[in-house]
Amino acid sequence: VDAATQRARADTLRQLHHGAGALLLVNAWDVASALVVERAGFPAVATSSSAVASALGYPDGERIGAGEMLAAVGRIAPRLRVPLTADMEAGYERDTDGLATLVGRLIDAGAVGLNLEDGLDPGTGQLVPLAEAVERVRVVREAADAAGIPLVLNARTDVFLEMTHDRDTALDEAITRLGAYRDAGADCLFPIGARDPATIAVLVRELSFPINILAGPGAPSIRELETMGVARVSLGGGPQRAALATLARIGAELREAGTYQSLQGGLSHQELDDLVAASWRDGPTG
Amino acid sequence: VDAATQRARADTLRQLHHGAGALLLVNAWDVASALVVERAGFPAVATSSSAVASALGYPDGERIGAGEMLAAVGRIAPRLRVPLTADMEAGYERDTDGLATLVGRLIDAGAVGLNLEDGLDPGTGQLVPLAEAVERVRVVREAADAAGIPLVLNARTDVFLEMTHDRDTALDEAITRLGAYRDAGADCLFPIGARDPATIAVLVRELSFPINILAGPGAPSIRELETMGVARVSLGGGPQRAALATLARIGAELREAGTYQSLQGGLSHQELDDLVAASWRDGPTG
Repeated sequence: VDAATQRARADTLRQLHHGAGALLLVNAWDVASALVVERAGFPAVATSSSAVASALGYPDGERIGAGEMLAAVGRIAPRLRVPLTADMEAGYERDTDGLATLVGRLIDAGAVGLNLEDGLDPGTGQLVPLAEAVERVRVVREAADAAGIPLVLNARTDVFLEMTHDRDTALDEAITRLGAYRDAGADCLFPIGARDPATIAVLVRELSFPINILAGPGAPSIRELETMGVARVSLGGGPQRAALATLARIGAELREAGTYQSLQGGLSHQELDDLVAASWRDGPTG
Repeated sequence: VDAATQRARADTLRQLHHGAGALLLVNAWDVASALVVERAGFPAVATSSSAVASALGYPDGERIGAGEMLAAVGRIAPRLRVPLTADMEAGYERDTDGLATLVGRLIDAGAVGLNLEDGLDPGTGQLVPLAEAVERVRVVREAADAAGIPLVLNARTDVFLEMTHDRDTALDEAITRLGAYRDAGADCLFPIGARDPATIAVLVRELSFPINILAGPGAPSIRELETMGVARVSLGGGPQRAALATLARIGAELREAGTYQSLQGGLSHQELDDLVAASWRDGPTG
């Protein structure tokens, strides 16, 4: 992917946050899953860090390390015709120089957007201090702009996820944090764990900015989220875990009944092979 | 995995070809899928080369190269408590010295069994000559025994797959080839594409040796295959392609209805994370 194409993809991804409907992201975990999502007609693809990590054998939470995560992104991005945004957890690198370097590596891998979460400070068990989290958003913004690729930055706060606050203060803390990330250069704000309509409505109203909601069974429908003004909806690790449940069903049926009904309706070998081959322009790299 | 454990796993895998029922293999493509198969209670796990390749972005047919295939095997094998057998296509290396070296690398990756196919000679478009294919089986057998890890060798003929023979001569050719692979040191014989009961029955009777059948929708049930004397049943790339069809359904529902029913029944985040974490003993390697 040359720089002009990559810039154009970043612009496309950014515009998708300001369209008539929400940007819908079915998170992928490897090349085949990303190609299936692209073929389904989505205008962009996102990775799920937990899904990429589990596919490669790592528990969630930055155990995978930047190198393997970037390698996974680098396998996927060049195969797509649509923009790829990568879930980069809390950025892997603790110091801001390292984080700026990571942004360059992410651009080299072909991504045009990223998720960056605040997460817990391992020292205190509390969320990373606001000033530090804001500084990290700013560093990513500046590093991307300096590199000439306007990465779409989805800044996530884990306040609803980590239960570091009670119900009454969590929403205020989320608004404070996300507003600060917005002002530091984020393109979209991600209050992961915010799921009830009342909370989502307050966040959209108070932040006046594109909001990403993590959806799945029990969440408001896309139509309801769009009516509330949500700009982006993603599914996180849910698609991979549903795919793995299909695998578990295939196994249970094989052992218990000795039959193959759960394999019905799969892609054909030819269909998957054609999909991968069409994306495969260069020789083996391994 | 130390050498004694690896030897014991190879012995276990070999014995599973001589049990009361058939050895059932639900083929995996990455660490998460292999762990889900192991958790489902299967006594061994197999990779599918086409599935591993598509996950990493390569079309089927050795485009992935030995390095990336072995890296995938090396990610999976150390995470399992049960034996892993790896689909190594036609062995990647054309000369026998290279093939012997590959066997050592496969052992280093932690596998205790492999599929080796004869496949097409790119020069002639016909199956690799029998003498050459037999020599390759012998080289793998000797390299594994010399290394002190008695790899379980599943020798595959592509005669039913590649349509190089008409119906009348294909069965004879398969018996000739598989008999020769048996005599050269294979542990199991894999007539991929043999699916109708009459053909399978002849193969079992004529070869008097463990036979692997690739099953799936339309194939005889496990009970029927066991009654015919089939020792091993695998599913190839079918489980991955069914899992990817689940992903396609999730995407279609999200775009068309804006709902999340197809995500129902997935593994929970905690469930998958616990499964991966339990297999994760060492630090990040990337």
